[in-house]
Amino acid sequence: MKLDNLRSLLIEDLMDLYDAERQITEALPQMIKAASAPELKSSLEDHLKVTQRQHDRLEKVFKKLGVEAEGKPCDGMKGLLKEGQKVLGKQADPDVKDAAIIAAAQKVEHYEIAAYGTARTYAKMLGDMEAALLLEQTLDEEGQTDQRLTKLAEYHVNPKAASAA
Amino acid sequence: MKLDNLRSLLIEDLMDLYDAERQITEALPQMIKAASAPELKSSLEDHLKVTQRQHDRLEKVFKKLGVEAEGKPCDGMKGLLKEGQKVLGKQADPDVKDAAIIAAAQKVEHYEIAAYGTARTYAKMLGDMEAALLLEQTLDEEGQTDQRLTKLAEYHVNPKAASAA
Repeated sequence: MKLDNLRSLLIEDLMDLYDAERQITEALPQMIKAASAPELKSSLEDHLKVTQRQHDRLEKVFKKLGVEAEGKPCDGMKGLLKEGQKVLGKQADPDVKDAAIIAAAQKVEHYEIAAYGTARTYAKMLGDMEAALLLEQTLDEEGQTDQRLTKLAEYHVNPKAASAA
Repeated sequence: MKLDNLRSLLIEDLMDLYDAERQITEALPQMIKAASAPELKSSLEDHLKVTQRQHDRLEKVFKKLGVEAEGKPCDGMKGLLKEGQKVLGKQADPDVKDAAIIAAAQKVEHYEIAAYGTARTYAKMLGDMEAALLLEQTLDEEGQTDQRLTKLAEYHVNPKAASAA
């Protein structure tokens, strides 16, 4: 696609995010399996449900813009998940692995915060307020997930990991 | 490296970041070359200098921890930069390309915000306050760069990109 206006850039970004959400949906079950702390497992399970909802919400955004929902390989998310998967395969103390899983999940969240923030701003500038509002809804959820993960790390996982031998 | 304690996870994360900063240093000149708006060019040039300083600051952190400064391939950053480079090669309106360059740079910033935030927290928990402070210094700089890029997008680049044909 030629990027001759902001609308084409927005659509390109949405295609990236549509694929990114799909990749996250595929990767989360492995992270849930590798996690030890029940609080982390349930937090990632909740996050999987939210991710599926965010994937479907993108379909509504595509519809508002009058284009077909379609993904294109998101290299950024691919790299982030590859990095996370390497940690899952490592020999590690269970509490330290939990800390590493949270760190990997927060990198994914921050990608989404950057990408949804940009897409929301483009939609607003193009005057498509309905699309902007849908994107902002996901952006808010990503921020909340990131904060929840920070609390989980600080109050549950990191203190245990810090006392690992 | 076996991740048997939080210290080994911190060192692993620092190795990742050390390579990530090197990758960013290599990628920024291409982004500067592809940018059109003088404000964006100079902002990225400043960012290149800051990145080199952050790379060197990591050497101090390694030293504080008593380990040799060494990188290991950072897959996350590799993916993010690959995504950014794809945009640089595209046929695009110059203002729209500038908007896309800012978006790519902000994804890189958010990776670093997540990664430095985690590393700073680990160093603090391990009682290494000098290392934590160095990492926090970089974390603050990343936050400032991200905000500067947001302002540049909102006040200079996006309005021009929105009026592209």
